[in-house]
Amino acid sequence: MQYGVIMAGGAGTRLWPLSRGNRPKQLLPVVQGKSLLRLSYDRLRGVLPAERIFVCTGAAFGPQVLENLPELPKENLLGEPMGRDTANAVGFSAAVLRQRDKDAVAAIVTADHVIEPIENFQSALRTAFDVTDEHPNMLVTFGILPSHGHTGLGYVHRGEPLRLKRDTGTAYRVLGFKEKPDKPTADRYVESGRYYWNSGMFVWRCDTVLAELATHLPLAHRGLTRIADAWDTARRDAVLQEVYPTLPKISIDYAVMEPASQGKGRAQVAVVEMPVQWLDVGSWPALAETLRTDEHSNAVECNACVFVDSDDNIIVSEDPEHLISTIGINDMIIVHTRDATLVCPKGEAQRVKELVGKVKEKFGNKYQ
Amino acid sequence: MQYGVIMAGGAGTRLWPLSRGNRPKQLLPVVQGKSLLRLSYDRLRGVLPAERIFVCTGAAFGPQVLENLPELPKENLLGEPMGRDTANAVGFSAAVLRQRDKDAVAAIVTADHVIEPIENFQSALRTAFDVTDEHPNMLVTFGILPSHGHTGLGYVHRGEPLRLKRDTGTAYRVLGFKEKPDKPTADRYVESGRYYWNSGMFVWRCDTVLAELATHLPLAHRGLTRIADAWDTARRDAVLQEVYPTLPKISIDYAVMEPASQGKGRAQVAVVEMPVQWLDVGSWPALAETLRTDEHSNAVECNACVFVDSDDNIIVSEDPEHLISTIGINDMIIVHTRDATLVCPKGEAQRVKELVGKVKEKFGNKYQ
Repeated sequence: MQYGVIMAGGAGTRLWPLSRGNRPKQLLPVVQGKSLLRLSYDRLRGVLPAERIFVCTGAAFGPQVLENLPELPKENLLGEPMGRDTANAVGFSAAVLRQRDKDAVAAIVTADHVIEPIENFQSALRTAFDVTDEHPNMLVTFGILPSHGHTGLGYVHRGEPLRLKRDTGTAYRVLGFKEKPDKPTADRYVESGRYYWNSGMFVWRCDTVLAELATHLPLAHRGLTRIADAWDTARRDAVLQEVYPTLPKISIDYAVMEPASQGKGRAQVAVVEMPVQWLDVGSWPALAETLRTDEHSNAVECNACVFVDSDDNIIVSEDPEHLISTIGINDMIIVHTRDATLVCPKGEAQRVKELVGKVKEKFGNKYQ
Repeated sequence: MQYGVIMAGGAGTRLWPLSRGNRPKQLLPVVQGKSLLRLSYDRLRGVLPAERIFVCTGAAFGPQVLENLPELPKENLLGEPMGRDTANAVGFSAAVLRQRDKDAVAAIVTADHVIEPIENFQSALRTAFDVTDEHPNMLVTFGILPSHGHTGLGYVHRGEPLRLKRDTGTAYRVLGFKEKPDKPTADRYVESGRYYWNSGMFVWRCDTVLAELATHLPLAHRGLTRIADAWDTARRDAVLQEVYPTLPKISIDYAVMEPASQGKGRAQVAVVEMPVQWLDVGSWPALAETLRTDEHSNAVECNACVFVDSDDNIIVSEDPEHLISTIGINDMIIVHTRDATLVCPKGEAQRVKELVGKVKEKFGNKYQ
């Protein structure tokens, strides 16, 4: 059976003060009143029934996830006691699904981006499921058609097309993964037409990815198997609490995908092209691209506001009664929440994380 | 007897969003936790006993004034039902004091400035009282020694020294009042050493200023006399409400001081030099000069704040729990109150009034 697992774990410091340690960005209603989690869920629902969609998140965020997605069965919440990077997050879901359904195929999707058109996402997902049907040992990743030579993303180098019996779309063998390149390299990648942005989304048979974990990261495999064995028993929480801290912290890319793409292990790697607009909303300028703009090119998510001679700003306020007013400012970010306000030029947005560190130094966890 | 009357009527739009229609700037704790009204009261208290200090303000602000000055006798509150400009505000106090004490001499002082050193203010006040003692028909104004050619203030042109028996200080006859000059003229005034900034503060016998009002503004004189006659009766409020709206709206400068300085009427005009630092705190940049500055020249009145690479800003927040954080901003004003935030460059501070007008257009009285 086919399943969907939404990864919704990140803290999203770069969207502070809206996102907080206890209010991850995926759960915030940042896109026309909808959360990224809700958008991700709705995308999956076009392909999978509700009972086969899971959410993997920090255990502490469980109640917020259920509030965001009232239709999510409580049993479909995979709560990590703590973050142990993506190898364990995806391994956790694979182990639990495999325990219930030995032929489980999982689509691992993120909730960090706005993806449009949804139809292209969904058809790529269907193609990837077809690939695992015909090639059970294939780890399928998704390649976003790059719009420009982005230096902040990883790239997937595609090789020959994969022969598929069903003519539902095209998949390619993967020649390799490339870390964040410098600008000339990134531009060369895009010009070549043979590189995709690495989406961090996957489709695979759970037994296939677990076998690779067993090969490359046996410690994690053993731990996750113990968790899966205890999952439908009274010992679930005790085992989770005991095992999770012992799992080696590593990304699935380093642990499995890269070695597999180099022929180490038994699995192979394919990429399905996903021709979508892929908006990372993990920083204020990025998020701003999803907001409505007024006639002065201000990206605005603010109920009460008055701007005088102010252009090209990003103004976000979560309190509908609080008035945000400006005179003569340009290219600024103003974010107002009930207990904190941020003012900084757009050009300094990448330093929000540094600021949050200083806030922590000065005030401890008060505004985290 | 000598009395003090503090004028505390202005709305102070330029300090929005801290000052509001129902929270005039004189009542805000803007200077090291003290209000301008409190500072003005404390200055007078060095010269006059508490029972002879009055406050003239909008009737609606009475409770706030009494909260600010718990030692003010309730009877010493002169509440105007509405603002009718300074001719009536000072005439109102003169009429009420004259009704109780036919020899009443009033010092009319403002609460718009921080004045230092206080001793120089107090000694100028004593000199002015002496002037009215020896010259009962003299309207005494105070001239601030100008520190520079300010184009936003009126100037007093001084003439010959006035002979005084008591050697407590120097007063001069006034040759004329000058409206806000252009910059070359203002500089010339300062260089000449014969011009003062017009302080808008006065000392006069109440009967003298009332006689001038009778000459130059008989309608106001008649109305104010009716109010004074009804003051210690049950009809006080009814007469106030009936008469006040009918008073002609005009400043005391236009109505009395200028004509008197030109020899029209029976009174004469003198000026007592007040060698003080005279900080108008009626705008954000001006108020900032009274605030503490941090090591990056930020003027800060904010309990919780974190600034990264931010210099020469003005940051004011009235909510001690709300965090104000900035990255890489310079020469900006950020003011945060519970229901409104203002962000604008220092250079745009004079446009706050315009902004407040736009806020009113959009939201009516909500943030006024």
